[in-house]
Order: sequence, then C-alpha cells, then structure tokens
Amino acid sequence: MAKLSVSIVGGSGYAGGELLRLLLFHPNVQVMQVTSERFEGKPVDRVHPNLRKITRLTFSKPSELTPCDVLFMCLPHGSSSNYLEQVRSLAKKIIDLSADFRLDKKQGFVYGIPELHREEMKGANRVSSAGCNATATILALYPLFKRGVADPMRTVVEVKVGSSEGGNSISEASHHPERSGAVRSFMPTGHRHILEIVQELSFGRDIQIHFSATAIDMVRGVLATSHVFLTEELSEKEIWALYREAYGEEPFIRIVKTSGGIYRYPEPKLLIGTNYCDIGFEKDEKSDRLVVISAIDNLMKGAAGQAVQALNIMHGLDETTGLEFPGLHPI
Amino acid sequence: MAKLSVSIVGGSGYAGGELLRLLLFHPNVQVMQVTSERFEGKPVDRVHPNLRKITRLTFSKPSELTPCDVLFMCLPHGSSSNYLEQVRSLAKKIIDLSADFRLDKKQGFVYGIPELHREEMKGANRVSSAGCNATATILALYPLFKRGVADPMRTVVEVKVGSSEGGNSISEASHHPERSGAVRSFMPTGHRHILEIVQELSFGRDIQIHFSATAIDMVRGVLATSHVFLTEELSEKEIWALYREAYGEEPFIRIVKTSGGIYRYPEPKLLIGTNYCDIGFEKDEKSDRLVVISAIDNLMKGAAGQAVQALNIMHGLDETTGLEFPGLHPI
Amino acid sequence: MAKLSVSIVGGSGYAGGELLRLLLFHPNVQVMQVTSERFEGKPVDRVHPNLRKITRLTFSKPSELTPCDVLFMCLPHGSSSNYLEQVRSLAKKIIDLSADFRLDKKQGFVYGIPELHREEMKGANRVSSAGCNATATILALYPLFKRGVADPMRTVVEVKVGSSEGGNSISEASHHPERSGAVRSFMPTGHRHILEIVQELSFGRDIQIHFSATAIDMVRGVLATSHVFLTEELSEKEIWALYREAYGEEPFIRIVKTSGGIYRYPEPKLLIGTNYCDIGFEKDEKSDRLVVISAIDNLMKGAAGQAVQALNIMHGLDETTGLEFPGLHPI
Amino acid sequence: MAKLSVSIVGGSGYAGGELLRLLLFHPNVQVMQVTSERFEGKPVDRVHPNLRKITRLTFSKPSELTPCDVLFMCLPHGSSSNYLEQVRSLAKKIIDLSADFRLDKKQGFVYGIPELHREEMKGANRVSSAGCNATATILALYPLFKRGVADPMRTVVEVKVGSSEGGNSISEASHHPERSGAVRSFMPTGHRHILEIVQELSFGRDIQIHFSATAIDMVRGVLATSHVFLTEELSEKEIWALYREAYGEEPFIRIVKTSGGIYRYPEPKLLIGTNYCDIGFEKDEKSDRLVVISAIDNLMKGAAGQAVQALNIMHGLDETTGLEFPGLHPI
Repeated sequence: MAKLSVSIVGGSGYAGGELLRLLLFHPNVQVMQVTSERFEGKPVDRVHPNLRKITRLTFSKPSELTPCDVLFMCLPHGSSSNYLEQVRSLAKKIIDLSADFRLDKKQGFVYGIPELHREEMKGANRVSSAGCNATATILALYPLFKRGVADPMRTVVEVKVGSSEGGNSISEASHHPERSGAVRSFMPTGHRHILEIVQELSFGRDIQIHFSATAIDMVRGVLATSHVFLTEELSEKEIWALYREAYGEEPFIRIVKTSGGIYRYPEPKLLIGTNYCDIGFEKDEKSDRLVVISAIDNLMKGAAGQAVQALNIMHGLDETTGLEFPGLHPI
Repeated sequence: MAKLSVSIVGGSGYAGGELLRLLLFHPNVQVMQVTSERFEGKPVDRVHPNLRKITRLTFSKPSELTPCDVLFMCLPHGSSSNYLEQVRSLAKKIIDLSADFRLDKKQGFVYGIPELHREEMKGANRVSSAGCNATATILALYPLFKRGVADPMRTVVEVKVGSSEGGNSISEASHHPERSGAVRSFMPTGHRHILEIVQELSFGRDIQIHFSATAIDMVRGVLATSHVFLTEELSEKEIWALYREAYGEEPFIRIVKTSGGIYRYPEPKLLIGTNYCDIGFEKDEKSDRLVVISAIDNLMKGAAGQAVQALNIMHGLDETTGLEFPGLHPI
Repeated sequence: MAKLSVSIVGGSGYAGGELLRLLLFHPNVQVMQVTSERFEGKPVDRVHPNLRKITRLTFSKPSELTPCDVLFMCLPHGSSSNYLEQVRSLAKKIIDLSADFRLDKKQGFVYGIPELHREEMKGANRVSSAGCNATATILALYPLFKRGVADPMRTVVEVKVGSSEGGNSISEASHHPERSGAVRSFMPTGHRHILEIVQELSFGRDIQIHFSATAIDMVRGVLATSHVFLTEELSEKEIWALYREAYGEEPFIRIVKTSGGIYRYPEPKLLIGTNYCDIGFEKDEKSDRLVVISAIDNLMKGAAGQAVQALNIMHGLDETTGLEFPGLHPI
Repeated sequence: MAKLSVSIVGGSGYAGGELLRLLLFHPNVQVMQVTSERFEGKPVDRVHPNLRKITRLTFSKPSELTPCDVLFMCLPHGSSSNYLEQVRSLAKKIIDLSADFRLDKKQGFVYGIPELHREEMKGANRVSSAGCNATATILALYPLFKRGVADPMRTVVEVKVGSSEGGNSISEASHHPERSGAVRSFMPTGHRHILEIVQELSFGRDIQIHFSATAIDMVRGVLATSHVFLTEELSEKEIWALYREAYGEEPFIRIVKTSGGIYRYPEPKLLIGTNYCDIGFEKDEKSDRLVVISAIDNLMKGAAGQAVQALNIMHGLDETTGLEFPGLHPI
C-alpha cells in the first residue's frame, strides 16, 4: 500500500508536536507539511526538541498548504471552525483536534472515541478528537451508563490533570514557582468538557455529570475518579463482567485492579507516551457507591494518540499501528 | 506565669518532630523529655535535621519518663490505648495524636477540633487530635451539616494527600521512583477517617460521607474537594454568610474565594508550616451541587499544630501562641 | 525602643514579598508603605497570598512615598541606581536588594554579607544585599581563601538553583511543562555573580572562580558544590578547625557533616524559610581536592533574610530578631 | 534470519525491566526466560506494570535457566562474577550489566560503550555494560582526552542524578518525604565509577577525574557537567569540529548547542526512554575552561539501551534496532 500523505495544520503546539512524533514513525504515513504562522521556515525541532536528528522538516506557512490524503487540524479552540472552509478541498479526510466539532456531530464529524464509534469511523471522512478529560471520563463510565445501572443525576467526577493540558501559552498560572506544587481547583464547576461527556453518556436519558478539575504538579496525565451511585446491586464480579463485555477486545483499554503490589489501580505516570486508557474500580462495601478510576496520557489517548488511532481505523489499518509504545517504569 | 512543663512520648516520627519544633519556640512551654525506643540517647536533631543548632535535647527511654504538666502522645495507631495506663499518673493533661481515642469520646477525650469543641476543651484534661483528612473534611462541611442544608446521603469527598501522611516508615509504595509522580487511588473506599467525619457531622441524623483518597506527588498537604448536594436553594452570598457565621471569629480559618489572580481557591502549598485551614467554595450554576474546597498542612492543622492549639485553649493562652508562622510564597 | 518605620520600594516581587512577610512579624519594625507601580491600590495579599488575614496593607504609588527610618529597595537590577537619587532624602538608611551597588562599594554601600562585613555594617547607612548564588559560594569559600589555602586559579563552583531565582516574570523558560523536570545548564559560563564572588574572595590576589549554574526542579533553594584544590595538605580535622574559627560564633552558619543518617551534608529543602547557610565538606582521599557543599534559601539568606539581618546589625538589635524560623522537616 | 533466543538473569530490577521492555519489542529477538529468585512464578507485569497486556511471561527460577543465544545478566554488583561460572555454558554471548567486569577487561569482557569500542564488540562474546554516570562522563570527555587537549589532572565532573540509579531496594534515603525535593551530595568524592572513567580516558597518560555526584528530585536521568581546562587554545568552532569528528556518524550522539530557544543545552528529561547521549559545550571567554554538558537516561544509554545497542553490534544488526523511541516533549 502506498503511504498516506498527511499534513498537520497548527503543528507548533503540544498536541501538534505529539502528533508529528507519532506520524514520523508511522509505517503507513508520509508527513508532507506542518504549518505554523509563528515559526514558518524554522525547523520543527526548534519547538519540538525531542525530534532533533529525527527529521529535517521545517514549518510551512498555512497558506502554502498543498493537497494530501489526510489533514490533521491542531488549531486553538474556536479557530478550526473558521479554518475548515479554507482546507476542505485540500484533503478528503480531516481529523480535527480542537473542541469545535465535538458537539452535535456538527458538519458531519464523528466523535473521536473509537471504543464508542468505531463503526462510524470506518467510513468517515471527518473525525473530531475528543477532549482529554472527556475521554478519561467517558471511557470510565460508558459501560455503566450504557447498561443504565448508574444514578443518572448523581455521578461526581473529579479529574486530576497535568500542566500540558493548558497548552504551550505562557501565563502567570503556569509560571513554575506558582504552578509547581500546586493542587489547584481551577474548574470546580462549569468545565467545557461536561457537554461532550453528557452527549456520549446520555443514551436518550436526562443525565447530569458533576464534574470538577484540579491541576496538580505533573506535566502529562489525567486521573479521573468517578463516583457512581448504582441503581441496582452489583457485585465486583458482575462489574468486572460488565467492563469485560464492553472492553474485552479493545487494544487500548486495560482493566487494572489487582489485590497486591503498589500499582493496584490505574496511574497516569505509567501511561506517559502510550495510547492506553487504564480503568479500575472499587465497590464501597458500606453503600451503593462505585468508584471508577481511569487514567490516560492527555496528549496521547487524550489527543494525538487517539487521533492516530482514528486514522488507522479510517484507513483499515491495524488499529495499534504507530501506537505500540508500552510506557516506562519507573518514571 | 511559670512555663508549662511538657513531654512528648514517641517523638521520632513526623508528627512528633513537628510538635517538638512548635513547642521549642512556644513562649509558655518548657520541653522536658522526648522519648523514642529506637533512638534513645541520640540527639533529636539526628532524626529532625531542621532542629540542628536549635536544641541539644536527646531522646529519652520511654521508661524514664518523669511527671510533667502536659504529655503529648505521638505513638502509632493502636499503641496509645495500651500505653495510656502507664502514663496517666504522670501528667494531668494528655493530648493524644493517634486515632485511638477519637471515636465515641472514649476515656473522656475531647475530639480535637477547636472550631467545633472549643468550650469542652477549655476544661478538658484529655484531647484526642483529629485525623488530618478528617480535619480538612469536617471543617469544610461543618457549617452545611450543622444547618442541615446538605443532602445527608450523597456527599462525595475526594482528598488529595502528600506522602508525609504515611509517616516515616519506609515501604515499596513510598520508594521514590515509585512514589514520585504518583496519582494513586490508595483508598477509594473504606478510609478509617470516615467514622470521625460521620461522628462530627451527623448531628443526630443518619448521614453518609462518600470518601476517597488519592496520593499525589507532594510531601505535606491535604486538599479536600467536597461535593455537596444542597437541599435548599442557596445563593453564593447566602453560603458566604453561612461560613462567616460559623468561622468569622476563627483565627485559623480563612475563606478563600477570589475572582482574580492565580490563587482563587485554597491551596495546600501556601499553608506549609502553618496552622490554617483555608476554605473556598463554588456553587454549580447548572445544578444543586456545591463544591467546597479545603486545604491544610497535614502535619500542622492536621496534627501537631492543632494539638498545640488545643494546648493553648486548655491553658487559657492566646490560641495562636506558637502558631504564628504565616506560610511562604512562592514555595 | 520605638519601632523603626520601614518601607519597601518595589514590593510586588518575590524578594519584596518575602521581606514584607519578615518585617510584618519583626517586633522592632512598623511597616509603613509598600510600593508597586503595577498593583497600586491593591491589597498586598493579592500578590502575596500567604499574607491573607495577616495584613490589610495596600500597595502605594512610588511617588507617594513618605519619609521613614529604613528604606528597602527591591527593584529590578538596573533600576535601583536610577532611583536612588529620588529616595535618598526620604530615609537615612537604605538597604538595596538589587545588583546595582554590589561592586566596588559604589555610593558608599557596604556589601551585605554580615559574616564578612559585620563591623562595617554597624555604622553603615547603606547596605547592598549580596546575590543569592554569590552568598552561597562566598560563605563556602571564605575561610579557605582568607587563609590562602586554595589554588587561586582552579576553583570550580557548580550551583543548582530553583525557579524563584528568576523572579515572577513569566517566560517560555519558566512555563511549567518546560521548566518542570528540567536540569538546565542556563549559565555554564559568564554568570553575573562571579564578579561579586571574586571581589569578596580575592584578598588582594589574582583569583579565578570557574562558576556554572544549573536550574533544577525546585522553587526555592541553592546548593553550591565548590571544588577547591588545596595548596597545602590539610586533614579534615584541620579543615573543621578552619571553618570553626571563621564561623564558630555565627548565628546563621551551621557546619553540617555527619557520618550517619540521610542528611549528611547541607540540603536546601531543610532551609526553606530560614536564614541559615549550611556548609559541609569532604576531602578527597585520592587527591588534593576539597569539595565544599553549601546551601541556602535564595529568598532568605540569599535576599530578604540577609537584608533583615543587616537591618538588625545596623540598629544594634539581636541579629536573629525576626529570623528565628527553624525550617521544616519533612518538606 | 531466525530470531535470537535471549534470556535475562535477574529481571526484577529496574535495569532488568527496562531491558525486558526493549527486547519484547525487538524484531530480531525472542525472549525466552526472565529469572528472579524472589518473584519466581509470578507474571513479570507484577513488578513491571508497564508491561501489562504486553506479555504473559512469568519469572523463572534461576536454576531452571536453559541454553539460549544471548544471556543478559542484571544481577547486583558483586553477584555477577560469582554467577558467571554457572551460566557460561548456557550461552555463547553474555552481556553483563553489573559493575563486576568493567575494569581491566576482566574475563574477556569488552567495555560496553560502542562509541569507543565498536570494532572490538563486533567479534566479542562478552560485553560489560558501562556505568550510567561513567557513560555520561566518558562520552562527554572522550574527544578531548583522545586528542590530549585537556589538562589531565584538573577535570572536575559534577553529575546530577535521579532516584532510579539506586535501584528498587527501599531505604530511608529513598523514602519519598526524604527524597522528594532533595539536592543531596551523596558522593562528593570516591564514587566507584571514577575507575571506569579513568580507564577509558587515560590513553596511557596519568589522569585524574575529580568527580562528585548529587541526587536531585527526578526518577530517570543523568546530567554531567564537566569542567575541562584546555591545554591549547581552541575556539568553539574548533571544538565543534573535534566533536563532529568523533561523533559525526554516531546514531545515538547528538551535539546540542543552540543559540536560541529554551533547550540550548542537553537535558535529561528530553531523553527519557531513549538511547541518546546529548552533548553540548560552552567555552568560557574569560579563561581556559571548557564546560561540557552531557545527558542520558540512566536506564537506557546508561544501562539497558546501551546493552541492546551492544547486542545489535555483536550480531551485525542495524545498531538502532529496537531503540528508535525519540523521547517525549513536553514531559
């Protein structure tokens, strides 16, 4: 098979850089162009220092974009929708990493979580990558909400997130002396990702996801702790069965729940650089609460990795192609 | 006033060391003895290196303990209750930092949160210091549960904690390469502190606190995020009033909720070394959920600091004596 | 004694904030004004959140500065020298924390390391606080260079520094995802502090200090590792004697060198919030090299703390007044 | 070509786990056995949680080891030499990761840095992997010492290292509250790796390497700062030429020295998971000092990665096989 020609619009940010790293090592892909207004003409390794000696690519001007098989858009939220008009003729297939096309399947975009939308993706020309926190939350709760065993109005989700979620724009909040050691409730209520989560988990019902986000001192990673009140009595064994049924064949989902050892439940640090979503759970013996713990790397399964997974599905490739990195330990 | 003679039983651990630091600088206190089986005869600065050049005290054998005005017990959980018999004749006043006497006001111990039990403490001879996570949670929720405006069965509390909570006993889980960068759900359900929390917040009602604890990469600090479902409609202004009424005169409670700046809500790093409990909140505009955020230093307001606050109250001293350190920024 | 009236020019930065914290708790000082162009009219706790509930001070306009006993200047390097003209009539005594008056005892400023210049400080009206890296280095090497036992041309000093050294101005380099985990040689040669170090250590000889600075992932702290080639054979005992002679009576210098335990040599984290400079050393058994290890908190002994120490000396106060905080463990 | 059958003796430690990760993804290798006394019979992912769902291997008893093409030994220092007798008949080729065979080319082992010993490795049956700190230091200094432009008696090397260097044995020093935030001079003089460094850099001359090691708060990584006094005047351009001559064709060495951007010099965090050694330098304009900065991942180029590189060379494979991971940014 001829290699797919692929370009990245807006490739100087963190998600764009991660995508570029993955695509450069993807055996079925040829990276054509990576655009950046700000860094036009500069070598890409100037802003992505991990790519030194890996590639001699330089950033192109967005206006010089040429046709290609697949176009990835990594623009700031709000810019993609404006930009779509300009690029729609350049590539048959578009994968957008912004928040612009996630809701209401706007403009024909499939919501980009393969575990929920694989069949739609296979024939799709447009995929909208899911939000990182949304991905961690949706994958944790999907088997429960699909089966209707969760109190629809009382699920509480607390995500702990790293600083790369905020992108590479500097601010007082991201200044190291202020951000280091922080345990910062930056979004106790009203997080933008709630809408995506509700969209994917409602299954025609009226539901509420009570979502809060706390920034902690790490760079990559999301840990979502979801507190679900079960509407029917389920043993841990039955819950296992439910998750196994939903995810037993999934290449990037692991159920992590061991009785011994240090790593009894998912931990984002083990997933740095990988496309896994690890999910574990514990049923409260004293109440109807089920705690579901899920972890991802926000730049991988939460952004670039999941986008490459979508590319693989859209083109009939093995879903794990270019996404085999298993993660490191210790780290 | 003559200085109070004070000794510490079990002074080689983290809480004992913190207590010793505070007492050495307390103007109304004379530290007499600090016991340790393991380090008997050794200078205390051998295990508490921050006390170098501050004191020449050495650890005493527990069996050599002499009478004093106030005895602090910093023994491992489970040991204090056995030990009480041996020391009850040595000191009129005993402040215990273990979990042994917190429940059911056993053996005449007052539960050690001054904001809830100040009057009882004034005449008390025995105080049992509250658990660190319990302190952060109880202080966050007390005004709401006292007034009965929280759904009694549906409060979810997620605490993020540092590694010093585990004490100074080494383990695989505390080995730096494993613990560094961790976001570890070490106690999704079943945490021991739940009983204390329920005891203090029930006010005769049947309540449930759905509590989970996640270890993150910090040494000191607790951030508790409490998700409360209000049973009556309250504006943020009314909630402010409620907290002001409960804590307006409290020297160690600050309501932290600002519209601008980086530090809009409580953050444990700002409290390192202080006895403050900072509390903030945000009402979800889209639902009946109130998110309450509270932060403490687990070794201070969560252990040694709160114990010194109790000592001050028991002896009619200004409550803030020896606890004036305001915390550092940046840190 | 009446309290000294004290004001701070340029009080919105990290050194200014630390100074304000110290002065607010100093028993012989009354803080009058704290100026800031940018935050004029705003409460100081807006930028120094550790001072919440501690003070109701607001920032003044620099032009509204009124006369006081002591003026601290915490302006950016380069601004102090321009500003001096405007404020010289306002206060008899001026302590400047910038780099502007450190060299050549310009404008009558005494170089602000008390361990070297205490007698001059006693009668001085102007003190120029020393650089943080310079302080750690000079205090480590002073006894050796004074006695002339170090090869004057071959001393290598490697400092490891935290992010607060860079102040509170944001930049790409201080953006958390970039700065976190960094081990960054930001100044392998040519560091500005070298001139101060040479000035203080030369004692009329021609000397060279080969200085490099590496930024590591911490907020506060400097660890200087100095490699000295001895020109005469000295046992560790003789080196001890040399340091004891120089610093035996110093309240803020501790010789830290123990054979057991974890903390055998100085560590900056134990000094967070303190005015100590801890110094240790190890003689290489196989060569003429002596390794001297020194640690400080860059915002304390490296800036605000040392400035308060100078204030105490200039006014005949006990040198440790307001500087008693012993540091925390664990931290 | 048939796959090489490979086993690992002592595979439960950090280096063993990293080696296993690399070998499981190596296209020319089949992992046969991984031994561990302590974990015999347990799945390898029990101690290497990053290998969950990657392999179903379980640990074998050392006594059950069967013949294979290549045997990697990852035993504690001191054990390998005893063990060699037992395993020498099992495999024609042995790669040892301990310190036991590094000096004096004992027992026919080639010192395992390919950039210095590639030709010897090609025909070798035994390779002894180099120490991590030694690797970073030797690669930084080799072009200078080979050409004889460095003062042989006055080179000072300061390495900053992470906690994984200490392996997975727990201790008080590695207890998170003690190790977190540490800047710890754990080996100011007398480090074991000095002998290897001297062996590789002496080229028949008498030389001294003044080496100190400081532990900092990271898990993986070494940054070596080497201060070299040049014996002849060299411009930065000439130094470039010297390094390019030595390493221009090397697949795993990158000269990192850029005038702009944040990452002007090598940084270990960019190398996490990679086999690169990045090297940069800065000539002091005011003296004869050259500062050379080198970075590696201690478990990769400093252990497992370099061992796989040796395996590739010994078997005529492309040297980068299985070592293509480029590292992550941000991290």
